[in-house]
Amino acid sequence: MSELSETHDTPFSSTTDLDMRHVGALRQAIRSEDKATIRALLTGEHPADLADRFEQLSTDDQTALLGLAPDVISPSMLAELEDEVVEDILPLLEPGQISKAMEELDSDDAIQIFEELPAERRAEVLADMAAQDRKEIEDSFAFDEETAGRLMQREFVAAPEFWSVGQTIEHMRSQSKLDGDSLPDKFFDIYVIDAHFHPRGYLPLSTLMRSDPDQVLSDIMDTNLTVIEPELDQEDVAYLFEKYDLISAPVVDADGRLSGMITVDDIVEIIQDEHTEDMLALAGVNEAGLVDTVGSTVLARAPWLFVNLLTAIAASFVISLFQDEIEKLVALAVLMPIVASMGGNTGTQALTVAIRALATRDLTPANTNRVIRREAFAAIVNGLIFAVVLGVITFVWFHKLDLALVIAAALVFNLFCAGLAGILVPLGLKKVGADPAVASTVFVTTVTDVVGFLAFLGLAALFLL
Amino acid sequence: MSELSETHDTPFSSTTDLDMRHVGALRQAIRSEDKATIRALLTGEHPADLADRFEQLSTDDQTALLGLAPDVISPSMLAELEDEVVEDILPLLEPGQISKAMEELDSDDAIQIFEELPAERRAEVLADMAAQDRKEIEDSFAFDEETAGRLMQREFVAAPEFWSVGQTIEHMRSQSKLDGDSLPDKFFDIYVIDAHFHPRGYLPLSTLMRSDPDQVLSDIMDTNLTVIEPELDQEDVAYLFEKYDLISAPVVDADGRLSGMITVDDIVEIIQDEHTEDMLALAGVNEAGLVDTVGSTVLARAPWLFVNLLTAIAASFVISLFQDEIEKLVALAVLMPIVASMGGNTGTQALTVAIRALATRDLTPANTNRVIRREAFAAIVNGLIFAVVLGVITFVWFHKLDLALVIAAALVFNLFCAGLAGILVPLGLKKVGADPAVASTVFVTTVTDVVGFLAFLGLAALFLL
Repeated sequence: MSELSETHDTPFSSTTDLDMRHVGALRQAIRSEDKATIRALLTGEHPADLADRFEQLSTDDQTALLGLAPDVISPSMLAELEDEVVEDILPLLEPGQISKAMEELDSDDAIQIFEELPAERRAEVLADMAAQDRKEIEDSFAFDEETAGRLMQREFVAAPEFWSVGQTIEHMRSQSKLDGDSLPDKFFDIYVIDAHFHPRGYLPLSTLMRSDPDQVLSDIMDTNLTVIEPELDQEDVAYLFEKYDLISAPVVDADGRLSGMITVDDIVEIIQDEHTEDMLALAGVNEAGLVDTVGSTVLARAPWLFVNLLTAIAASFVISLFQDEIEKLVALAVLMPIVASMGGNTGTQALTVAIRALATRDLTPANTNRVIRREAFAAIVNGLIFAVVLGVITFVWFHKLDLALVIAAALVFNLFCAGLAGILVPLGLKKVGADPAVASTVFVTTVTDVVGFLAFLGLAALFLL
Repeated sequence: MSELSETHDTPFSSTTDLDMRHVGALRQAIRSEDKATIRALLTGEHPADLADRFEQLSTDDQTALLGLAPDVISPSMLAELEDEVVEDILPLLEPGQISKAMEELDSDDAIQIFEELPAERRAEVLADMAAQDRKEIEDSFAFDEETAGRLMQREFVAAPEFWSVGQTIEHMRSQSKLDGDSLPDKFFDIYVIDAHFHPRGYLPLSTLMRSDPDQVLSDIMDTNLTVIEPELDQEDVAYLFEKYDLISAPVVDADGRLSGMITVDDIVEIIQDEHTEDMLALAGVNEAGLVDTVGSTVLARAPWLFVNLLTAIAASFVISLFQDEIEKLVALAVLMPIVASMGGNTGTQALTVAIRALATRDLTPANTNRVIRREAFAAIVNGLIFAVVLGVITFVWFHKLDLALVIAAALVFNLFCAGLAGILVPLGLKKVGADPAVASTVFVTTVTDVVGFLAFLGLAALFLL
């Protein structure tokens, strides 16, 4: 074990926790302006580890570090930093350093850095770049954000159908000896194209490896090819990768000509980003990520808190309609939050299952009706179960049978509405083209609060007083 | 466009929506017991598409289909079905069909099917398998669920350090001509091993492709190798893949000898599964996935509804302590849910950001204190903002300055507690080794309900009455 902990940053490590001593040492080096130690701590290891170490610093420490040694941010480390961090540190780097980094990286990584530049600095950085690299960035940037066109890299390997395995391997070997090596840093599939540059099939490198040199590509290629259009949303791209277990996929232009490649490592990142987006949207947080300052945290959360305030006031307005009843029977005030809370919980459960099923495409037009019916029935069954429990508790607590019956009836009705709202609200948002995760929670809990108070206090007004 | 819609199931398609007509046709074929159509609709295309089509059927239709034509479930389709669906249909298949499927698949896919078998049928299925395949399953099954050992496949490509590129390629070519081809179906990296079978580095196939045949592996291999131990939790494995942009990684045994391989396509699935788990846990749903029947839906949700009922009663108990005050000033009953609801929302926001940051390892011992301080400050700032808003609204509504001041003070206090609970509860659960997503929500909303009611009604009792 002691040996293991000493070799934590050697290649042979499966540790998944960051080494905190390094972060502490880095912080100290920044404060004592010890450039040599800073440089030692931010070079030589895997850029992903260096990026992690940098990200653990507070914004102030990051700024101080870049003032002391801006060049420790290597191109590969820049590519590993999270978007929000890149956005923060780009203003602290020289335009020349940024353009050089973008030239060195594959075009898909370069465009991600370019996206984080403030609009007014983009021309300046582009002007510093080599013509070919600049053109690639400009072409990618012409596609909308979060589309396959933005995501793809311009480097890929294509071979004509009539080539042999041996010819193809020879081609790659000679390519890699050229000066401006046009091969991607890493690739996993070779796309087989026809005379019009249209992809006709693909060959995983492992198939190429085990085939005889004189075999012809068109004889051994896999024609079950998933071709991506550049306008496709990145979430849909991720779905295709996941569904068909893809490692890479070709992107074609409007004429169906091969124009780029997307690889699975970018997809893994997108899946994580989309997850974060969904979870934060459900919780009513506006911006993604662990933002660093109090100000940005407040800004990320206040808008939905404001919406929540409005819906809470709507629920209070419902209660205010029954002030006389509450004055006469104060047990109503004691018990009413239970009905609302159980409804909120039921609604959130149904909502989350629906959002998740929409994201994984398990909820489709083919089974929507069945799922709606199931949610409604399940809510009624749970409503009946908990109506009995809550009814008994109420009777034991307040010794009023009619009050127990009223709260039981209100609970069944509210859980039924909660279950229905939990499935219908996200489906409705999706139907009108909105993101079902955003705003769903607020709609559903408004329903469950208003219905909960209205049903309980309304039934009480009718039958108890 | 008309051409596109006609060719939706050709290889050249980037559609991400299932074709519902096929599901409808399949349903009809089942009901009219038309085996030929069933067979036509569940063969010939990508197994992932066929699996999707099958999954869209209700459980009853699935059962009926398997009664009519159990053999349409091919091994590759079985591997593409979701775990819950596999669990449901395995009892409807012959042991022989299951063992044959497991023999055909790579060992990582085979073990996934084996896991879904009821314990009493496992011996029977194993007995039907070839000795070598059976041993692989037994070895994998010896590792805990959701570990690298379960996840890995036993097929991989290794080469000694002193081999040349040409030798290595020749080895793969001759291997693939052998009868019991030991190469994996797909592979992306070659692991370079020393005399003790310890991995020393790796070569992406793309590097092998562009290297001269006479280069020696140890000269060109990448020694920055991430080695996985078989006991590592699958969530940690996924983290390593994501962090280092891995496509495959070697798994070693207790002596450090290469014993298996994990590939990125399995990781993508795990990331999705872990995410579903987190979201459902936060919402208080017990089982993953879109379960099909009302009964299983009720079972998945009732337990946390029961916990929620207990906490709601605890909050009601707090209210019951102030029945006299509410009777004297019924506005308290009208307004109290607002204080609790705003606290609940603030707590959920902080909680979700914390859970997500823990999952992506952005929240670490190095920045925990800073994040806690930030959450507390942000909650106070939002508390002050919304205290002013709610105070003004209360004054306008009820024309009572002291009531407005009391609700404002209670709101600030509850939001402060909510922000702290939102970060401390998941951190605390993690510290004691529990999954921070499970139960967090219930703890946090209990805090915000109890504190909300207690602060508002308590301050009212002290200063208003």
